[in-house]
This record gives sequence, structure tokens and C-alpha cells, in this order.
Amino acid sequence: MTPASAWGLDHLPYGVFSRTDRIGDGPARVGVRYGDHVLDLAEALHDEVFATGSLNAFLARGATAWRATRELIRNKLSTDPVAVEPCLIPLDHVTLHLPFEVADYVDFYCSLEHASNLGRMFRPDEEPLKPNWRHLPVGYHGRAGTVVASGTPVVRPSGQRGAGVFGPSARLDIEAELGFVVGAPTAPGERPGAFADHVFGVTLVNDWSARDIQAWEYVPLGPFLGKSFATSISPWITPLEALAGARVPGRAQDPEPLDYLRRDGDWGLDLTLEIRLNGEVVSRPPYREMYWTPDQMLAHMTVNGASLRVGDLFASGTVSGPEAGQRGSLIELTWNGAEPIKLSDGSVRAFLEDGDTVTIAATAPGPEGGVITLGEVSGTILPAR
Amino acid sequence: MTPASAWGLDHLPYGVFSRTDRIGDGPARVGVRYGDHVLDLAEALHDEVFATGSLNAFLARGATAWRATRELIRNKLSTDPVAVEPCLIPLDHVTLHLPFEVADYVDFYCSLEHASNLGRMFRPDEEPLKPNWRHLPVGYHGRAGTVVASGTPVVRPSGQRGAGVFGPSARLDIEAELGFVVGAPTAPGERPGAFADHVFGVTLVNDWSARDIQAWEYVPLGPFLGKSFATSISPWITPLEALAGARVPGRAQDPEPLDYLRRDGDWGLDLTLEIRLNGEVVSRPPYREMYWTPDQMLAHMTVNGASLRVGDLFASGTVSGPEAGQRGSLIELTWNGAEPIKLSDGSVRAFLEDGDTVTIAATAPGPEGGVITLGEVSGTILPAR
Repeated sequence: MTPASAWGLDHLPYGVFSRTDRIGDGPARVGVRYGDHVLDLAEALHDEVFATGSLNAFLARGATAWRATRELIRNKLSTDPVAVEPCLIPLDHVTLHLPFEVADYVDFYCSLEHASNLGRMFRPDEEPLKPNWRHLPVGYHGRAGTVVASGTPVVRPSGQRGAGVFGPSARLDIEAELGFVVGAPTAPGERPGAFADHVFGVTLVNDWSARDIQAWEYVPLGPFLGKSFATSISPWITPLEALAGARVPGRAQDPEPLDYLRRDGDWGLDLTLEIRLNGEVVSRPPYREMYWTPDQMLAHMTVNGASLRVGDLFASGTVSGPEAGQRGSLIELTWNGAEPIKLSDGSVRAFLEDGDTVTIAATAPGPEGGVITLGEVSGTILPAR
Repeated sequence: MTPASAWGLDHLPYGVFSRTDRIGDGPARVGVRYGDHVLDLAEALHDEVFATGSLNAFLARGATAWRATRELIRNKLSTDPVAVEPCLIPLDHVTLHLPFEVADYVDFYCSLEHASNLGRMFRPDEEPLKPNWRHLPVGYHGRAGTVVASGTPVVRPSGQRGAGVFGPSARLDIEAELGFVVGAPTAPGERPGAFADHVFGVTLVNDWSARDIQAWEYVPLGPFLGKSFATSISPWITPLEALAGARVPGRAQDPEPLDYLRRDGDWGLDLTLEIRLNGEVVSRPPYREMYWTPDQMLAHMTVNGASLRVGDLFASGTVSGPEAGQRGSLIELTWNGAEPIKLSDGSVRAFLEDGDTVTIAATAPGPEGGVITLGEVSGTILPAR
């Protein structure tokens, strides 16, 4: 079977699915996407690690096993298509789930343009960037328990929006981000080795944000309920090997970072994100413009001795490029609501309305030429309860 | 067998232990402390939920099961001591472990005196409290993966302490807190029911803090590496029923909180904490003086629709009372180092030195009169690597 779409042998992202073409849902299992099919890995590779309903057990095997498994899958698909055909399930016969159990979730703030834009809007009388911003990748912990799979509806959160003011968020926003999935753990105090020996792959992230709740609550301890109601991720985790063609040098940095933040190879990534609001493209943020690269995020997150666990997720923060059409959040795209987006149905948006659907997609140069398409992350806003 | 210490039938905290009196460590199991013994619950109750090495499976059974199990244990210990005697293991024959798998860890900031003290020190030209502080319990997510059991050594963290400045923290501090362990989960969007139907019990928490790392990194997204190297908790989780005698009305609040923060009964808790530095008592913080009560923390944490998971941990933030000898952190006790603590060996401390041991203990009025003693949390500082 030759894939009917762009999801070929050069990509093979991992996800968790259950079959819906039998009576009742089948048990959740790990598969890779190949064209418009899912390859059932437990059946194809006769390996029970894929029959667990989450990627975590496979992630825990470490980078050597990840690479060997990818080679095994590629060989089976390319040299023995008849044998694997019974293990290929059409995508429309499966439900996709959250692909891994999230251990800790860290969200960074790595775009110079995003951090500067927000600084200009919220602190117009100060320097847009705080003094620490160019010295370290600023980050904080988010709520791991509310990371959800693409397609999960997002209920508009309610909360405090000021002194004595309570109600549904009136400034519900998105943040288009790239997330990194940690596979191989470290012991407390252990410095991680090479980036690719710990990070298994990437996923698109929509870090939904209630700006009014966030603005009231965030001093001095950072965002909390303005973010913790939901964070959506792609159902497909793209392994780092599939991004070999997308690796570029990171953006120049001034001042030179401290030794522990020295870059570990070319982990700038030439991904082009695309944000669609109700099907219309509203932005195309370029990931390669990010100031802090993911190897630097990993080094920073662990420099104090903090250990990594299987399933840790860290995200880049909003991906915003230097151009107006490259911003990764509505608050930037509409300049805090002052310049609403006009949609083709004549409506305008400053922030999200109930019923709106936001989809984040991305493409990247493929490892063997051509282009790969990352798994999309999508969500629809439901009214507040 | 009658307990030789204060840990009687009115307390019975839960922990996870393994036996060290056999060849090799035995498998980890759940027990309750009774006097100077641990009652092996899997053996005593013939219930495999206690043979799992963590409290989580038992927590997931919910509040009705928690209460019934406590009654069952009390009955067995009081009416059938001969039968349970083989299941009682001397404390010095066991190793204690982290008692549950931490899902999400949230740290609040609920002491008016602590928040005011830090405001005065760090922002001397402003109002000590931020405008939101009296309107909501300020909180943020910490790193669940580095919550460790009492007795785990704490390696002094290294990190950035300013622009271009890197090295071991020179201002390593403690925060004496009370932690609340969530047993019964909620679905996304579901409002939790009664506090005692979701929260299983309490543990003492030492939220170790590197003040110099924290001060440089924390704007605008909150504490990160200044906290995430280690958070220590007691090995014994005291069930809420054992605190029935400690329940008091919460402190008066002005302004009146919003409806969703209305108190759910008397969850002010009359615990007296005790902080010992190398064995010497340096502070006795009174928990009953806390401004925000734990039922309010739970209501706030979930008001945006965020779900609860089995094993979520939320902590009060530093417990500091109105008196100088009641402060819960060294930065307050020494007023940012200006008034060092004098120890009996003639040495002084502004912040922690390598080799220092900090222990946090607490007592509370017992549910049947008398006093109960919570499980201590202790840790010793090792030099930076």
C-alpha cells in the first residue's frame, strides 16, 4: 500500500488510537500514521509495549530503541507491504486519544517578538522585555492534568476578572506553540545528555488563554487559572528523526548565553505554523525565528538539578514572527482587540466567540526532501457553564 | 499492643513502607502508623489495594471507602489486637517512601503575614500586597516530579542569580507549609462537592526555595527553577478525620469573598508548626492564622473548569503568623538576612549552609481530646555538584 497523502515513510508520527469499526470501542493502542491509515504496532511488531494505550512505556525504552523501532517500521512498510496490510486501519475507523500521559508540563516564552509585543501592550511605560529575558528562557509550570487531545471541546472558563468581578472570560485567546515530548528520564541532579537522547519528538500545542483572568491573577506568581482549564495537543507525535530536514542554526543571540545554555547542535527548526480560525488562515508563524531553541530550554529546565520524567512536556511559548501576519495569538494579531480580524462571513473577532474552531497546523522540510505535515491540533469553544 | 507513643487510634496516618528486616528490601506497601509500628494493611485487611507501593489506588476509591477503612482499622486494632499483632512491624524495620504519586502540584500563598513580609522586603516602595491578594488565593503550579519524601537529601541548586551570574544558590531557604492530598477526582468542568469528599488528608511540606535564583527569574511568569529542584513532604498522610478536633472557623476576611469562595464549613485548622534548624526550634507558625482556608483553595483551583486527579497536591504557601517567632521562612525570620539567627553552637544563619538539617513538625488538638503529632518532614542540604 502506498500512502495516498503526504504522510509517507519519511514521517511516521506516533499516536494512540482505538478502533470504532467493531462493536464497542476497542482497547487503546499505539500506532503510527501512514498515509490515511494507522499501522497497529502491537500487531505489526508483535510487541506488547504498544498495547498499553499510551506512548509512555515505549518512550521509557530510550533513544536507541526509538531509532531501531523506526527503522523496523520503515523496513516492514517498504519491503513487506502484503504482510503489514492487515495491520493498517483506515483513519476513519479509529478514534485518536491523548498520545501520552503528561508528567510535568512546562511552558516557555521563547519568542522575542511575542514577549516584546505583550510587554508593549501591558507595560507601555517600561522596556518591553524584562531584564532577565535575554539571559534565560523564561518558563513556568502549567497544569499537566488538563492537557487534552486535539478535538476535545474547550468550555469557556469562568473566573475572576478583577476585584469583585466574576464571570465567563470575555477575552479568550489562543497561543500557537510547539511542544517537546521527553522520553528518556534523568535522575535528580543528573545533567541530561544530548538533546536527541532525551527528547522523543514534537507536537503542536494550543495553550488556550483567558487574558482577563490571567491579567488579574498573575502577579506575583505567574499565570494559573487563565491557562489551566485546557491545553490542546496534536494526536500525532512527530519523532525528531522526521525533522532532520528542518534543522537549522538557532537565531543569533545577544548577549552570548552562559555556558550551560550553549547550543547543542542546530535545533532551530524550520517549521511554518498555520493558524486557522473557522477554516480561514489568520497567521503563519515561522518557528525558525524563535530566540531560544529547545536544547536551551531543556538545559535550563534541569540546571538546578530537577529531574526529567518519561512523558514530561515542554512547550516553546507562543510562536510569533517579526511580521504582522506571523503572530501566534489573537491578542497580538488584533493588538489587544484594537484591530479586530475580519472574517469572510463579514464578522470580526477580537477574541474567541462561542462556537469558534481554531486549528493549528504546520509543515516542515522533510528528512528526504519534500515536505512533511505535522498532526493538526484543533478545538471548538463551547459556552461557559 | 498499646501504642508506646502519641500515635494512637485517634490518628492512624497512612504511608508507604518497605521492610528492611528481611534479605533485600521487600516490595513497597501501604500501612498506617500505630505507635512505633506500621500496620501492614494488605496483610491486616486482606486487600490488594494496599500492596501497590502508593496510596493512589486507595485514594481513588473515594471518601466513603476512606471512612469505612478507617473504622475497620480502628476496630481491628482495638478489638482484636492478637490477630493484628503479626501485621505490626517495628518502625526501625522499615524504610518509608513517597506516600503517593503526585499528579499536579499547586502551591498557594495564603498567609497574609507572609505575603506582606515579602512585599515589604522586595517592593519597599509599593503597597506590600498586590491588588488581587485579598480577592483570591494566589497560586501557581510547581513541579510534581521533584516532590520527594522526608529524609531525601537536598542538593544545593545552581543557576542564574543575575545577568551573567551563575553558581550555587547563596540564599537557600525553606518554606514551612501544609499540603492537602486530593483523593477523589472530578471530570473537566465539574465543580467539586464537599471539601472532605475530595481531600483525603494533609502532609507537612517544605517548599525549598533558592531566593537568588527566584528573584532573577520570576518576572513575569512566576517562580520556576528557584523552587523546582525539590519539595519535601512528610511520609505520613494524616486523614482529615484525624483533624476533627483541630477544625476552627477561618480567619475573618475583608472584603467578603465572591460566592464561589464562600467557606465550606470550618476549615481553619488549629495546627502549630515547629521549625527546627539543626535540632533547635527557630519558629512556631500557627496555621489557624492563615487568611485563605483550604476549602477556598480547592474552590478557586477548579472554578475555571480544571479537573482534579487522584494524587493532586496543593499546599498552603508559607505559614507565617503575626509574631516574629511565628514566621515560616528564613528570609522572614532573618528579615532578608539583616537579622541572622544565632544557634547554640555560636554560629549564625541568614540562609542555609551545607550540612544543615531542617525539620518541620506539627501538633494539633486530637479528635478525641489530647494532641496528635503529624509526621515530620526533614531534609539535609548537600553541597552543590
